[in-house]
Amino acid sequence: MATLCKPDVSVPEHVITMEDTLALARSLHADHPQLPLALRLIENTGVAKRHLVRPIEETLRHPGFEDRNRTYEAEAKARVPAVVNRALDHAELRASDIDLIIYVSCTGFMMPSLTAWLINTMDFPSHTRQLPIAQLGCAAGGAAVNRAHDFCQAYPDANVLIVACEFCSLCYQPTDLGVGSLLSNGLFGDAVAAAVVRGKGGTGIALERNGSHLVPDTTDWIAYSVRATGFHFLLDKRVPGTMEPLAPALRAMAVQHGWDAAALDFYIIHAGGPRILDDLSHFLEVPPEAFRFSRATLTEYGNIASAVVLDAVRRLFDEGGVEDGATGIIAGFGPGITAEMALGRWSTDSLAGPALSARHVLTTPAHAGRESATEPVS
Amino acid sequence: MATLCKPDVSVPEHVITMEDTLALARSLHADHPQLPLALRLIENTGVAKRHLVRPIEETLRHPGFEDRNRTYEAEAKARVPAVVNRALDHAELRASDIDLIIYVSCTGFMMPSLTAWLINTMDFPSHTRQLPIAQLGCAAGGAAVNRAHDFCQAYPDANVLIVACEFCSLCYQPTDLGVGSLLSNGLFGDAVAAAVVRGKGGTGIALERNGSHLVPDTTDWIAYSVRATGFHFLLDKRVPGTMEPLAPALRAMAVQHGWDAAALDFYIIHAGGPRILDDLSHFLEVPPEAFRFSRATLTEYGNIASAVVLDAVRRLFDEGGVEDGATGIIAGFGPGITAEMALGRWSTDSLAGPALSARHVLTTPAHAGRESATEPVS
Repeated sequence: MATLCKPDVSVPEHVITMEDTLALARSLHADHPQLPLALRLIENTGVAKRHLVRPIEETLRHPGFEDRNRTYEAEAKARVPAVVNRALDHAELRASDIDLIIYVSCTGFMMPSLTAWLINTMDFPSHTRQLPIAQLGCAAGGAAVNRAHDFCQAYPDANVLIVACEFCSLCYQPTDLGVGSLLSNGLFGDAVAAAVVRGKGGTGIALERNGSHLVPDTTDWIAYSVRATGFHFLLDKRVPGTMEPLAPALRAMAVQHGWDAAALDFYIIHAGGPRILDDLSHFLEVPPEAFRFSRATLTEYGNIASAVVLDAVRRLFDEGGVEDGATGIIAGFGPGITAEMALGRWSTDSLAGPALSARHVLTTPAHAGRESATEPVS
Repeated sequence: MATLCKPDVSVPEHVITMEDTLALARSLHADHPQLPLALRLIENTGVAKRHLVRPIEETLRHPGFEDRNRTYEAEAKARVPAVVNRALDHAELRASDIDLIIYVSCTGFMMPSLTAWLINTMDFPSHTRQLPIAQLGCAAGGAAVNRAHDFCQAYPDANVLIVACEFCSLCYQPTDLGVGSLLSNGLFGDAVAAAVVRGKGGTGIALERNGSHLVPDTTDWIAYSVRATGFHFLLDKRVPGTMEPLAPALRAMAVQHGWDAAALDFYIIHAGGPRILDDLSHFLEVPPEAFRFSRATLTEYGNIASAVVLDAVRRLFDEGGVEDGATGIIAGFGPGITAEMALGRWSTDSLAGPALSARHVLTTPAHAGRESATEPVS
């Protein structure tokens, strides 16, 4: 049983409020013919404030892709380890217990990925598997949970560390003047999140099923244009309407599992924007209050890309969790347009306490793989 | 039992020979103080020819990162589907049988990844999971095989499509004049490879165990510098010496599995360069002939990054495979410095023929996940 333990989330110290954002839009785009529309869209996001890795004055200057990416790397190295340590603490594990690191981030690009640096500097074992994912955008948070679930399904004694590091402000492009870009400039925020999926033990969301769904022929609705100036985020105005085709995919997965997507106990939904949340609660026929964790993420941090679902799970924990056996769904949405969905039940660690140390004498994932391989395949 | 079926590999129509490469180096770098060393290093690669997606005259001009990346996308869309179709044919499966697409490529960047386009245009189911990996470089071929193995370990009825699309020539940087860059300009080639890992059935390498190993504190030995001009490949002169620390990791994984890395029946090794192959055969104490598949890839195509291991497996198939139960290893090496390693046995499909269709009435991975999740966790 793969259990998503309590995430840790950290937002940077530089804050920009909705008022700051609107004032900036008015001053930077005073002559923009669609300024009133852009201002209205930004106000409608309900994003009260966002957190940025660099001061706003610096964020607004584009020093070139190379400098931006260097800042990404420096900020990631400065900010990720503390979040990882707290996520390990929440899961009552040490770095040496981790078998796989899934690192998701679409706002900077490094090769080797930060996974190698983390292994070197945080005493993860040299055999820790590395899975960096850069191209699933906001859906990567859900994808990371799902691939961690798969890995623990394959190797039940394994533990997977998920890191979502999104510095959206480092993708700010001052020359992008479409309404979608102006809206994005008021929507996205920066954050680092981490969580452990434990193959055995742990308190949190015991993952039971996962699935993916691609909305046909929407690849250019959410996309990067890759240029000398870096990643240019393209957001089509049809995106907020995608909950109509995605809600049936969420419902269908629940039905496959014998559950009713309208009657779950908790909902962890990607807070892409306010209409995503409004529409999905409408189409799933659940009260808006059910999405309060995601709504709080959006209000307090903005759309923090792949880190949203982990932050929303963190808020579920902070509220005290739910009853053992309570059912829920996690859904990340991103480019493709892709939904990465998971179903799980709240589960309180039955192994907590001294028994936990048993993990350390259990087989390694590699050993587990070998054992399974010798079983007859029917 | 996850079985890596016969890969399909395609190399582009534009050919550059060793003689062409040496002549170009002499004319482009006539005044370079280390030209003789660079020429000697290039000659030592043993790369007789390489294949490029664009004519050499066009390859040598740098039209900017945006144009380069646009070429990457156009060439990938033009070249990948045929290779995928043949890989599906080799595995006796259809697109509708695939549960996960792992797309590995470090030589262009798209978001959404090509996985979304493939699902849309090649009739993969909309629930096909997408796993794009861009940051594992040459090790990504081994990583793709290993993550496919894990997925089939989790969901024994699943099938995974692996695609490795590497257009190294689109990362040619005319302003990079270090000896490592001049050598790289004579070493890397372009190719598209694809293969299916079948959870049940299939003839090929039945995967039994996989592992990863990071050589400590070598993150800057193989790396990209990400700049306005795109990805700049940095190759440290210490890289060819890394087989000494990596050979013990390969041996240790074999020992864990009860095998002797010096006495396997087939070896599929990343052909990073000639010394990688020479040193590894030395340190593993196997005759150079054991690495003939990788050596042939290097000679005929150059280092085709993550596609090397799939091409070497293809050559093993073309040689007629080996006896049922014959043991072997797959090892990809790349930035980190990371080794992605797998152990498996040659296996001839015992389900071939009409029985194959049974797959289509079996449970889906998601369903399988649910079943497993209800089993007691011991």
